[in-house]
Amino acid sequence: MDIKEFVLEKALEAKEGARALLRASTEQKNRVLLNMAQRILDAREELKKENSKDIEYARQKGLSSALIDRLTLTDKRIDEMATGLKEIAALPDPVGEVTRMWQRPNGMTVGKMRVPIGVIGIIYESRPNVTADATSLCLKAGNAVLLRGGSEAVNSNRAIVKILREAAQEEGIHQGAITFIDTPDREAIYEMIKLEGIVDLVIPRGGEGLIRAVTENSRVPVLKHYKGVCHVFVDRDADPEMAKEICINAKVQRPGTCNAMETMLVDEEIAREFLPEVLKRLSELGVKIKGCSKTREYFREAEEAKEEDYYNEYLDLVLNVRVVKDMDEAITHIDRYSSGHTETIVTENYHRAMRFLREVDSAAVMVNASTRLHDGGQFGLGAEIGISTDKIHARGSMGLEELTCQKFIVFGTGQIRE
Amino acid sequence: MDIKEFVLEKALEAKEGARALLRASTEQKNRVLLNMAQRILDAREELKKENSKDIEYARQKGLSSALIDRLTLTDKRIDEMATGLKEIAALPDPVGEVTRMWQRPNGMTVGKMRVPIGVIGIIYESRPNVTADATSLCLKAGNAVLLRGGSEAVNSNRAIVKILREAAQEEGIHQGAITFIDTPDREAIYEMIKLEGIVDLVIPRGGEGLIRAVTENSRVPVLKHYKGVCHVFVDRDADPEMAKEICINAKVQRPGTCNAMETMLVDEEIAREFLPEVLKRLSELGVKIKGCSKTREYFREAEEAKEEDYYNEYLDLVLNVRVVKDMDEAITHIDRYSSGHTETIVTENYHRAMRFLREVDSAAVMVNASTRLHDGGQFGLGAEIGISTDKIHARGSMGLEELTCQKFIVFGTGQIRE
Repeated sequence: MDIKEFVLEKALEAKEGARALLRASTEQKNRVLLNMAQRILDAREELKKENSKDIEYARQKGLSSALIDRLTLTDKRIDEMATGLKEIAALPDPVGEVTRMWQRPNGMTVGKMRVPIGVIGIIYESRPNVTADATSLCLKAGNAVLLRGGSEAVNSNRAIVKILREAAQEEGIHQGAITFIDTPDREAIYEMIKLEGIVDLVIPRGGEGLIRAVTENSRVPVLKHYKGVCHVFVDRDADPEMAKEICINAKVQRPGTCNAMETMLVDEEIAREFLPEVLKRLSELGVKIKGCSKTREYFREAEEAKEEDYYNEYLDLVLNVRVVKDMDEAITHIDRYSSGHTETIVTENYHRAMRFLREVDSAAVMVNASTRLHDGGQFGLGAEIGISTDKIHARGSMGLEELTCQKFIVFGTGQIRE
Repeated sequence: MDIKEFVLEKALEAKEGARALLRASTEQKNRVLLNMAQRILDAREELKKENSKDIEYARQKGLSSALIDRLTLTDKRIDEMATGLKEIAALPDPVGEVTRMWQRPNGMTVGKMRVPIGVIGIIYESRPNVTADATSLCLKAGNAVLLRGGSEAVNSNRAIVKILREAAQEEGIHQGAITFIDTPDREAIYEMIKLEGIVDLVIPRGGEGLIRAVTENSRVPVLKHYKGVCHVFVDRDADPEMAKEICINAKVQRPGTCNAMETMLVDEEIAREFLPEVLKRLSELGVKIKGCSKTREYFREAEEAKEEDYYNEYLDLVLNVRVVKDMDEAITHIDRYSSGHTETIVTENYHRAMRFLREVDSAAVMVNASTRLHDGGQFGLGAEIGISTDKIHARGSMGLEELTCQKFIVFGTGQIRE
């Protein structure tokens, strides 16, 4: 069978699964999730065995140690997969929720009801745990999942999918609800994203290259973020101690993540006082500083920041620092260089806090909190399928609710249009 | 200047307009809308003069009378444009609404705030009133609009845009908020829909051909419906009188609209009793009936409905009629042939009403009401920018709320990630 037919068949299977899921009850979905968790734990040894084939192959191919690390299913990661499944079982079901309902003068009642989106394609790279995480979120929100994992993790993914499908089958869930495109052929991705009307949404997770390739070629809506170029603006009325803690946390707590700070903006009124100490601390923590000319006056060790640096997502212990005239200049900088992911103002000034919240056009805008807190778990969404910097459907952390849409429901008593 | 540069320049102007609109207050936006309404009325003669140029040109080109009708700005349509602007001024502002807010264990407060989407491209055909309608909805929701109307209406659109921009300028709104791509070159459409990152959303309004061309080529998210193949299912427990009224209304009240019924499904238990009378009435009202074999037993005048007829949006006094075994068969038919726009069940049976509401996967699902009522005005949204049969962001009638998205806002007191 050629790849085009193969992918189409899988997608049609997923579409049937999605139709069947419209009738699944919350209890049934939760039973599946708990069953999956138990089966994952029971299959620990088998999973590790299959995973070791992927690792062996990755080593032979000379793939990077970072990739091999992401690929590896340790006991801890297997436990986390099972825990994740149980946590999602415990979350409220978004499907069927009527978010609003109102009455019209003719007596007709109109409401908006949360419903599944349908078939969600997940395109991801090396981490096999995404297979379980994405499946469980999609399933709980009533969506069929069409999985296309990285070819380097194919044995691990295949083993996980087998377990998930067995659990679903045992609880009477249509097998199409969990569909795995089991081929190393990259062409499968391009076939999948052409299937407008069958696949309803695609969420790519991985490097910027993968995400751009998907977005550029997709005929199906895509939710994604390319990168996180996040900013902290230290206002003239910031509490300096709080600002220092937030900036250090936002940069060094886990610099390889999309919600880590890449550029610190400091109001010139406090720059002379604030910068030397905080930059010294950051340096001691291993952060390389790239500064504007004013920053370099206050901190000689800083390299010069170039225009293109401000667009950069370092994902590393490197930080741009820029002194700005005031909040307006900070917002202008953010408008220009931010990727629209997460921005924070540190200030005790009420007026500027409110203006920053309203005027900064990013997925999450914070006052006096570390950008690192923009995360489904930290926000209390329970779990996240990803983060969107798109401007429609969902911005920021996407949990179960963001895997649904709302349809209109109408309760009439024979109303017609006059 | 070449077309690519020209469109890019306009889009960048709109993007600046969108940034500036983030600071516009509700009062300011409402003043603009009322000012626009007054200026439209004041310019009645000028508008008719410009419009007559378009009509004259359309006649010379031999365009259809239906198109010339849509193109014509009568006194009534000018009044309606002004009334529409005033109505939108009177609607609540969706921007800034915090739809939910909750506290996290670390004391951080997280909320979701409605914010504008940014730059919205509107691609439309002959009706010049869309210029004012779309602009006012986008503006009220804080979005800059990038208008690309049909070349046959260019004089009318240019005159309307001039008035709208003057009103905006008088109230201190950035001119980029209302941007008009003033060229007859169709290439402008294709340039506009490539501008990912500048244009945030495209809404095409017009024939299926235009909409498909936009969707197939767009790198920007598109919200649209291709067509409305809407169904009424008359259940065995329907009130026959109510079912008759709803079916007649759904078909004949205005057959050329996307929410008119194209196929009537009738439970076989009541078909013998229900069909002859209702089909006779429909025939008397000028409706041509295409029926399945059972339908033709009960109503000899019916033509044979072919498989492909069930996919058809007639937009005319033609109706498919099919007898089904039960509701499940009706839902299976809808799953297969519906365009996902609007479906109605007529029934007094509670259980089936609830199942139909939940299991039918369309933008609006109704019980005991005419499909013709699926409309922004009828639903009480105030006005609509269009109807979406897409599965993300918005389904069904799109009003002001659907022209916004939600970002996360966080009020912290120094929280960092542990």
